Amino acid sequence: MVMPDIMRDGIDRRRLMQMMAAGAVGAAATGGPARAAAAPYGSPQLFPGSRMPRVAMVIYPRMVLIDLIGPQTVFNLAGCEVHLVWKDRTPCSTDTGIPIMPTTTFDECPQDLDVLFIGGGIGGTIDCMKDMSVLDFLAGRAKTSTWVTSVCTGTMVLAAAGLLDGYKATGHWAIMHLLPIMGVTPVHERVVVDRNRVTGGGATAGIDYGLTLASLLRSEEAARRIQLLIEYAPRPPFDSGTPETAGSGMVEGIMAGRKEINATATRLAEAAAARFRKKA
Amino acid sequence: MVMPDIMRDGIDRRRLMQMMAAGAVGAAATGGPARAAAAPYGSPQLFPGSRMPRVAMVIYPRMVLIDLIGPQTVFNLAGCEVHLVWKDRTPCSTDTGIPIMPTTTFDECPQDLDVLFIGGGIGGTIDCMKDMSVLDFLAGRAKTSTWVTSVCTGTMVLAAAGLLDGYKATGHWAIMHLLPIMGVTPVHERVVVDRNRVTGGGATAGIDYGLTLASLLRSEEAARRIQLLIEYAPRPPFDSGTPETAGSGMVEGIMAGRKEINATATRLAEAAAARFRKKA
Repeated sequence: MVMPDIMRDGIDRRRLMQMMAAGAVGAAATGGPARAAAAPYGSPQLFPGSRMPRVAMVIYPRMVLIDLIGPQTVFNLAGCEVHLVWKDRTPCSTDTGIPIMPTTTFDECPQDLDVLFIGGGIGGTIDCMKDMSVLDFLAGRAKTSTWVTSVCTGTMVLAAAGLLDGYKATGHWAIMHLLPIMGVTPVHERVVVDRNRVTGGGATAGIDYGLTLASLLRSEEAARRIQLLIEYAPRPPFDSGTPETAGSGMVEGIMAGRKEINATATRLAEAAAARFRKKA
Repeated sequence: MVMPDIMRDGIDRRRLMQMMAAGAVGAAATGGPARAAAAPYGSPQLFPGSRMPRVAMVIYPRMVLIDLIGPQTVFNLAGCEVHLVWKDRTPCSTDTGIPIMPTTTFDECPQDLDVLFIGGGIGGTIDCMKDMSVLDFLAGRAKTSTWVTSVCTGTMVLAAAGLLDGYKATGHWAIMHLLPIMGVTPVHERVVVDRNRVTGGGATAGIDYGLTLASLLRSEEAARRIQLLIEYAPRPPFDSGTPETAGSGMVEGIMAGRKEINATATRLAEAAAARFRKKA
């Protein structure tokens, strides 16, 4: 892709050196243990003179990597300060195998956020739905975030934290039927904005979600410029991106393999709803 | 996203432990130096009993991360063995700040490849265009790869290695006018297949490219199933993904900031063409 501004002033190299110095990456290169918190990501020169919108992206073990990278690519080009947040500094595994290092722990995460975000990955999503430290972090930061957001199965975690009760929302097609358990009205759109909640569909919907947020944080003009930079003029070679277009045979095949995990997710959704309704 | 098979048998966790044991990630967690080569990525259980197509994805400093992760997500779901290849084991910086660790060096990379791939990131692309170790690696492995491929500005590197002379190809819109210098016929499509060369457009085109390769490596049915899993039914909130739809004002603004880098790329393209034509 084409980002001469970023490339020329060497922000990536500086950032990499910071992380290496912190022992966060490259044991082979540095041999050193962790010494300091890594800085958040971001390219302040992209919108010179403006405040950088502050984004906390919750990452977790067994997440789906493209759920993170689609939106993060857009947040970066929108000149945001991006924190990859997890409970500790252990690298988080992902579906494709590439592990991702948190930059910021739950404790360190700033209070004043423009965007709170969580992506998907059903195995990890289920672990998050039963992890009170994750749900409490989301519920707490949601109070001081301008936008409270998710994509893919991440919508299940937001909902389990009680943050979508009474809201319209979307998520990965395979979990949409579970949302009403937690008081959510499922809407089969690519991106759904209901008051300050912004949710996106499965995996690749994170790009559509990201461009929507870029327009909310910056301007439509800025979002359109980012769309051009990342050449987001999709032309899928097939037409099987939704249950309707893929057909019932393929959908049933996938859902048959998910019986057990859906049963678990259902139980956790019921437990979460009982919990946040008791509190309210 | 929804991948119960991967999640249940814990391939990610195993892989992460391998990398940690190798010192490739998580200095904070392990404190140990590099001890062994990391294994390639891949989930053999996704297509049980079949040979895993072997993919070498060339990564490099200052690459664009989504150019890698879009295709890699699809290759993973297509049950491929994925090598992230670079000249050494230094983590490669990316546009978004997240560094990526190579799994395989040029020397270690297998000879018999189903797919040879390189993505974009103009600053890093330019460095690759003048780096004979990169160009020689690509030219060498192209001889024994079933598919020789690129997306985004990565097409410039394939072309500089002499691999697209006489071929039709596509790439990021901002470098298309430079391709003819290296004997390439630029075709303004999202994905272009010419004999065994497969090229994709800018950044997000890597997903369309990936699904095309999945159909070539596995079957159209398999590619359609992957499209459904990653819910690739894009609905961009704006219509500015191409120079034509974004309008000349926005395009000229971006190109004006790229004058210097385009002049450098032009010089390197001319030098590359002179070099591979002399050899031929």
